[in-house]
Amino acid sequence: MTTARPRPLAVSMGEPAGIGPDLILKLYADRQSLGLPVFGVFGHALFLAARAERLGRAVAVRAVAIDEVDQTFDDALPVIEIEGEVSDSPGMPDPNAAPVVVSAIAQAVDAVQAGAMRGLVTAPIHKASLYGAGFEYPGHTEFLAALCAEDGIVPLPVMMLAHEDLRAVPLTIHIPLADVPGEITRALIIDTVDIIARDLRSRFGIAAPRIAVAGLNPHAGEDGAIGREEIETIAPAVAQLRKAGIDVVGPLSADTLFHPPHWRSYDCVLAMYHDQALIPIKTVAFDAGVNVTLGLPIVRTSPDHGTAFSLAGTGQGSANSMLAALRMADAMS
Amino acid sequence: MTTARPRPLAVSMGEPAGIGPDLILKLYADRQSLGLPVFGVFGHALFLAARAERLGRAVAVRAVAIDEVDQTFDDALPVIEIEGEVSDSPGMPDPNAAPVVVSAIAQAVDAVQAGAMRGLVTAPIHKASLYGAGFEYPGHTEFLAALCAEDGIVPLPVMMLAHEDLRAVPLTIHIPLADVPGEITRALIIDTVDIIARDLRSRFGIAAPRIAVAGLNPHAGEDGAIGREEIETIAPAVAQLRKAGIDVVGPLSADTLFHPPHWRSYDCVLAMYHDQALIPIKTVAFDAGVNVTLGLPIVRTSPDHGTAFSLAGTGQGSANSMLAALRMADAMS
Repeated sequence: MTTARPRPLAVSMGEPAGIGPDLILKLYADRQSLGLPVFGVFGHALFLAARAERLGRAVAVRAVAIDEVDQTFDDALPVIEIEGEVSDSPGMPDPNAAPVVVSAIAQAVDAVQAGAMRGLVTAPIHKASLYGAGFEYPGHTEFLAALCAEDGIVPLPVMMLAHEDLRAVPLTIHIPLADVPGEITRALIIDTVDIIARDLRSRFGIAAPRIAVAGLNPHAGEDGAIGREEIETIAPAVAQLRKAGIDVVGPLSADTLFHPPHWRSYDCVLAMYHDQALIPIKTVAFDAGVNVTLGLPIVRTSPDHGTAFSLAGTGQGSANSMLAALRMADAMS
Repeated sequence: MTTARPRPLAVSMGEPAGIGPDLILKLYADRQSLGLPVFGVFGHALFLAARAERLGRAVAVRAVAIDEVDQTFDDALPVIEIEGEVSDSPGMPDPNAAPVVVSAIAQAVDAVQAGAMRGLVTAPIHKASLYGAGFEYPGHTEFLAALCAEDGIVPLPVMMLAHEDLRAVPLTIHIPLADVPGEITRALIIDTVDIIARDLRSRFGIAAPRIAVAGLNPHAGEDGAIGREEIETIAPAVAQLRKAGIDVVGPLSADTLFHPPHWRSYDCVLAMYHDQALIPIKTVAFDAGVNVTLGLPIVRTSPDHGTAFSLAGTGQGSANSMLAALRMADAMS
């Protein structure tokens, strides 16, 4: 008799020289006390075994097929093996490993899209190491969107940072601050809020999501005295969304919006740029925030930190954010 | 025999239709339980008495000369009377009161500069109501700097937000976000950090202040991949300051800088723009942050909120920030 468990989650290994493999091994070792859902790692079994040994972790690692992940998970860390060379060199990224890192993500996405796995948790990558392997995206998120394209149409990926019931989305992400005002359009706000509202309903079980939109300028522009983007772009977009029946307010002054008791009166805040969303999340939840990608046909989460090269292979470094990412992917799928 | 008490603090009444007068009356009523330092209000005694009655507060209000503030404080709220008309109309700013509001600030500054009072705490003003009275400054802070000009030279006022040992300064303040990159210069960074370091020593008793400078762009520009202001402007300014012996680091990625345990490893963070400094302070300390003006020949603090018209005259609204401003002015002078 087999226990009926949900399908496994997919975890992509991320940059081998970074902290991702350490966190995966740590969480796997603690799977019982933490009550973790079953997952399989898209990566490199020999490398992961070497990293486990370096860390002094008694973790068995086993290369398996996707349909063997579930039956393997209780005894050994199930690894869906990606062809290629990966050396165990913490803190020193090896460009030779790039094809494995990139393929691990692509194959994990395929497995989730095919329905063999429920959702994807990605460990951090180091973009600069991947450019040589044909990775030409500003980040993980855009690569995932490209992988999820259908009939040549790439979905708009929406990056959400979440910590418990506090959620923020930056409308623009990895662009210079000087370019932010020019990138803010009514259409982008409308499309983004549409995706947020839809995914809060479908993935987070929030029947009637309440969304707040931050202003771009100090005090949301003070009625035009400190910038006009609120009047010309943000307010009209909010008005149009409200007409379409979405519970959205704004533009609101960003400085008072993120005090947690205020913040909690909305299911999500749409910020206008990277730091406007990331500062409050990391101020409140430095090592336990989760990066969630909305707008994709698959569930995808990741820790909201990077590769932390200086901590890789040391056994130091908090697994809180990776753990929160795993739990959130579990809850969302 | 008179008790030797420090000279009084000056409090400017602020916008009569706002919450400032309410907070002053509330704090005065609680002066003994809170152990408040002696202060005199630059304002309008009849108006304050009317507001006290509206609030149902048994507070005596007495118009006095500056040198009578100390002997009056135990029995009645001492008010240095400013000529003019002020009606008690909570939530409805009356332009006729503008000359009183503006003169109250000017006379309070004079009293502190003359040494009759120790420092100034300003209650919130409503700029739009003051423009008719010849007030032509972007804000309180710039007006105070102009009042402190010597031989026609206006000091550079530096706005610091503080909550306990967390302090942040925005390099640029009430300007559109689109104008921020153009306003960031090496000279402005150097002058501002010089003032921060000097005032942390002289006003806060920090012998060797540690200062962090935030980047402008996401991830502090990622070595130029996401904007070049860090490389061209911020890093050279930091290098020059370090050469001059100031303990300053940066540019640092702003999103990870404001987690309180990180933040506390610096005595102050210099942010590049309004929301980059205000979001973390208000996220952590919504109603207890203090606005401190550095760079002036006088001590000046204020609550970090506005006039809150909807709460004025109701007795609601937190006095925490005004109380913190009073205590900080007391400690600084």
